[in-house]
Amino acid sequence: MTGAASTPTPQEFDRVLSSMCTEPHPAAREAAVAFLADNPGDPATYPAVADLEADAVDALGDVVGLSNPHGYVGSGGTEANIQAVRAARNLADGDVNVVAPESAHFSFQKAADVLDVELRLAPTDDDHRADVDAVAALADDDTALVAAVAGSTEYGRVDPIPALADVAGDADARLHVDAAWGGFVLPFTDHDWSFADAAVDTMTVDPHKMGRAPIPAGGFLARDSETLDALAVDTPYLESDAQPTLGGTRSGAGVAGTHAALDALWPDGYRDQYERAQANAEYLADELAARGYDVVDPVLPLVAADLPDDEFGALRDAGWRISTTSAGELRVVCMPHVTREMLDAFLADLTDVGNV
Amino acid sequence: MTGAASTPTPQEFDRVLSSMCTEPHPAAREAAVAFLADNPGDPATYPAVADLEADAVDALGDVVGLSNPHGYVGSGGTEANIQAVRAARNLADGDVNVVAPESAHFSFQKAADVLDVELRLAPTDDDHRADVDAVAALADDDTALVAAVAGSTEYGRVDPIPALADVAGDADARLHVDAAWGGFVLPFTDHDWSFADAAVDTMTVDPHKMGRAPIPAGGFLARDSETLDALAVDTPYLESDAQPTLGGTRSGAGVAGTHAALDALWPDGYRDQYERAQANAEYLADELAARGYDVVDPVLPLVAADLPDDEFGALRDAGWRISTTSAGELRVVCMPHVTREMLDAFLADLTDVGNV
Repeated sequence: MTGAASTPTPQEFDRVLSSMCTEPHPAAREAAVAFLADNPGDPATYPAVADLEADAVDALGDVVGLSNPHGYVGSGGTEANIQAVRAARNLADGDVNVVAPESAHFSFQKAADVLDVELRLAPTDDDHRADVDAVAALADDDTALVAAVAGSTEYGRVDPIPALADVAGDADARLHVDAAWGGFVLPFTDHDWSFADAAVDTMTVDPHKMGRAPIPAGGFLARDSETLDALAVDTPYLESDAQPTLGGTRSGAGVAGTHAALDALWPDGYRDQYERAQANAEYLADELAARGYDVVDPVLPLVAADLPDDEFGALRDAGWRISTTSAGELRVVCMPHVTREMLDAFLADLTDVGNV
Repeated sequence: MTGAASTPTPQEFDRVLSSMCTEPHPAAREAAVAFLADNPGDPATYPAVADLEADAVDALGDVVGLSNPHGYVGSGGTEANIQAVRAARNLADGDVNVVAPESAHFSFQKAADVLDVELRLAPTDDDHRADVDAVAALADDDTALVAAVAGSTEYGRVDPIPALADVAGDADARLHVDAAWGGFVLPFTDHDWSFADAAVDTMTVDPHKMGRAPIPAGGFLARDSETLDALAVDTPYLESDAQPTLGGTRSGAGVAGTHAALDALWPDGYRDQYERAQANAEYLADELAARGYDVVDPVLPLVAADLPDDEFGALRDAGWRISTTSAGELRVVCMPHVTREMLDAFLADLTDVGNV
């Protein structure tokens, strides 16, 4: 080993403002530790965790407005987005394309490379949401999938999902909604985003983001069983017949942690968590605006604001884990571990940095 | 939640003979629990676990005979095999094919579907190893990758890696070795399998199998940096520039657990573990042969034997977690949790079952 003499310690969350992950719920942590060695990818050997997964998928269906959901708990949102594109490609014929807004997560770039499909990115509107006309203009007979975002990574924006469903329908394409981050806050808002709100075929919703499950826990959900059938590969030497997942061995910790988090928090705990997070985001946005920074209004608990590079750098040097949008704005994700006290400490440091 | 009233409990390992996963080493479990909420996919936010990963990759290089390795700890062997095929495809031009022995893990079927490449499967020889001439006969100008197996899933066989490296070289193709299960036992054998033994370009070696790390911990290693460059996708809103991994968010538990397991066990602990496992496999093989079953000789700690279906079913009904090869043979993987006492209990139940 080439490591330093001292053992690295896990990241403390008291200065983490950049992550879409968070501290797991205590019940989720406990379940994850218990099921650390179980492999839901081998249900004949590990039936208990396979049962937990079936229950967890049903519970995720409740979150996203889908009775009788088909899906699984995988490694994360990237896997789920890849699988959505893969299913659409496999169900179509010949060379296909995917149309998504420019605000789509970079995992769609990864999916395009991995799956060898063309990705067409449509401009967003003035509020960083998918421009429906721009998406429609890029869709054609070879479009297998329209991808929409419900809670974008950079600005927490929710695309006009029903209108994009119409675009997908007109192109005879499927509609995928990436609610990796937004899926556990949107049920408590008035947005139209779910399987119940539009003709959504597949969805990404990550328990290990706002769902308070431990990493790795990414949810991939489909309305119809044909989606998983289109992903299934035969499995010799496992006592099951076919495997639709992208991975083989999978994390029992993620599955059991997801089950436990949903059991503990759906729906009231998640509602409380959303209301706290949203209030914190609006507080931070107001405080930043009062200090004269240009702020992107937090539709969901995510604040972006224009911050000079030197101030950004000084805050990082002070230990704050912050990141930028591709346009260079400060980006603060008000995850459940982000408290009002943390934001006040951050604002105090920002004041100090600005005064230097 | 639709679950039963009683909470499922994790799988006990005292009757698990079918899995290539096992109980993590205590130090690995402790590290995994500590780093459960860290995301090595976001090194700017979680630098400690990123440092652990860099160290762990170096240590994995020691296991597989590679100084200055390039790679990462991902979700498992399937991801690593997909990435090996993806890198080969991306580094080649046009439509490509992959040639592998029929004994290759079914993740290569998955890779072929995901990556839209042709998979050509060559027959194996009488001892379930890749037939070099058969592989050579399938390789042509469009072959981007020859895949070899070092410790096959069904029979624990080691392909003739140096000869397959020659085949790959003649076809101007890359060579990938899938040592997902075998990588932590082969260093203590006389087999030629590693980066030091042949012109291997990439390798799968899974800490969460014989490496005693918790799930998910799959190792993907490459000799040259161009391999990871061929996989890299740009990453906005992360403070790093590009990401070669298949997933986005990744498991800190898997990375820290890998680091801790390697620290505790390489090399002497793994050697002891291999010697115990191999002795157990030979003991089981001898006992089964003495009872009149046809046994496939355990080259590595994995025993296959012809068992009537009714006896197999009765043993599963008795709680034994066992599986079959695609040819229908009983398959017992002598993982570190498999003790002599377990095997004696299994043999006693087999005797009872045979006498019914």
